[in-house]
Amino acid sequence: MTRMLVLGGTGETGSWFAKYFKEKGFDIAIWGPSGKVAIAEKLGVRYAHEIMKEVNESDIVLLSVPINKTSEMAKKVAPHMKPGSLIMDVTSLKSDPIRAMTTYTPKGVEVLGTHPLFGPTMPTMRGQTIILTPAGRKTGKWLHIIRSLFESDGAEIEILSAEEHDNIMAVVQALTHFAYIGLGAALRTLDFDVERSRKFMSPVYEIMIDFVGRILDQNPELYASIQKNPKAMRVRQTFILECMRLCEMADAGDEEGFKRIMRKAAKHYGKTHEALMRSDRLINDRIKDKEKQEYA
Amino acid sequence: MTRMLVLGGTGETGSWFAKYFKEKGFDIAIWGPSGKVAIAEKLGVRYAHEIMKEVNESDIVLLSVPINKTSEMAKKVAPHMKPGSLIMDVTSLKSDPIRAMTTYTPKGVEVLGTHPLFGPTMPTMRGQTIILTPAGRKTGKWLHIIRSLFESDGAEIEILSAEEHDNIMAVVQALTHFAYIGLGAALRTLDFDVERSRKFMSPVYEIMIDFVGRILDQNPELYASIQKNPKAMRVRQTFILECMRLCEMADAGDEEGFKRIMRKAAKHYGKTHEALMRSDRLINDRIKDKEKQEYA
Repeated sequence: MTRMLVLGGTGETGSWFAKYFKEKGFDIAIWGPSGKVAIAEKLGVRYAHEIMKEVNESDIVLLSVPINKTSEMAKKVAPHMKPGSLIMDVTSLKSDPIRAMTTYTPKGVEVLGTHPLFGPTMPTMRGQTIILTPAGRKTGKWLHIIRSLFESDGAEIEILSAEEHDNIMAVVQALTHFAYIGLGAALRTLDFDVERSRKFMSPVYEIMIDFVGRILDQNPELYASIQKNPKAMRVRQTFILECMRLCEMADAGDEEGFKRIMRKAAKHYGKTHEALMRSDRLINDRIKDKEKQEYA
Repeated sequence: MTRMLVLGGTGETGSWFAKYFKEKGFDIAIWGPSGKVAIAEKLGVRYAHEIMKEVNESDIVLLSVPINKTSEMAKKVAPHMKPGSLIMDVTSLKSDPIRAMTTYTPKGVEVLGTHPLFGPTMPTMRGQTIILTPAGRKTGKWLHIIRSLFESDGAEIEILSAEEHDNIMAVVQALTHFAYIGLGAALRTLDFDVERSRKFMSPVYEIMIDFVGRILDQNPELYASIQKNPKAMRVRQTFILECMRLCEMADAGDEEGFKRIMRKAAKHYGKTHEALMRSDRLINDRIKDKEKQEYA
């Protein structure tokens, strides 16, 4: 039986993975900085009262602590791991955690960076993407084992280097969240009545506003940490500069300039029409969902 | 038989409404500035070769020309309308068109502002919202007739004053589009590979990026004109200022400040958890849609 310790297993993401691996037949122990033994009881797993003893006896140590604690935690526990074991993380940045896990593990211990592109509100990993970032010479048998396991549950696995990962995520995560959080902050400053506005929205706007709400509903710690991606600063600043350029044109009534930026952006984007069709399907699903709610 | 002239009926939105009213049994003529008679033939409606004669004989004149041409067109045709008839528009701003239509119609002609919150890619108006802005003393029997017709096809009708309409749309439309167009422009400046990035996206990010593509795929004229809403300037500028505030905090590593803005925005937003639940359903629909495509 594979023995796994989930550090930060008392948090939402950690609990999600503890439950997942328990259902796969792993022998799970969890530990959290606040010592919530009750969560272990609820999950039906052990609580690691003696954390270093548990680290030493584990086949896998999974780090699910906040990103700003990940390197520190790796430094603390990795030296005590046994040969043939694996340390993996599930944080949303990869360069720093991979560097720390690689530096502090003894020889013979494997390292795997894992970034599940979904949150703990998802019931299963089916259809979700999980990025794995292997750690050079500290990669061995475990990469295949973890990959196969996730794939057998319908996850899409992508393999990237830690640096490529952080570059892509600076847009895919950091910029997306940033824009939605910026919208949420603007709605507040404008004192805009979101609930009332729902009456005047088409499904397109409702979907946008729901995604603003979705992000505002979740742990701000996570979203602040995603912005710490070292590649995100340039991306955020580029977005703001482009918005300023568009705004100046709109303010000045320069319709031609505005349309020119749109056309260039469309050309760079590429398959905009496929995007339109997919979003049409989503809108139709939303309408059906609303009708179902009304007749329920 | 109700006789209707659709000015701009050769365009996408105008054709959509020409087709809609034809199916309702109206006698339709269309006219467009480029004189595309073939579109009338394709729709199976008449082309108004003698535009002023047709205006004078119509029960309803529907303006579906670009927003920057709407007032000018109203000035040209409205004085020739017959008593008991109706002039209505389907543009996305309301204060200016209502003012023009009210000013130039003779006594006894009714005026109705109409803003369908959906584009011509939607197959029907079921589940879509249509805002009607009546024009004070130039409101009569037609408001009820048009309202009942749209409601019988499953549209949600909302009645607003023209000014309220423009205030709400400065956020609902102008700001939403502005943020998505700004994202599209940033992706271009960053030379970000959108197609490749789809491999590394969870459904949440895919939905966002599809809405960027959706807007970039459509007529830039429409999107530039929506930014001309006189209430939109303050809204755009507020959004940019909030983004700058967030960016400064993220750049400086001020996590507490960043989280504080998020929490305040969440509090103002209100029902964030309901938004999360709705967006979860949408994400699940999207996953099912993807699986269907893969097995098709």
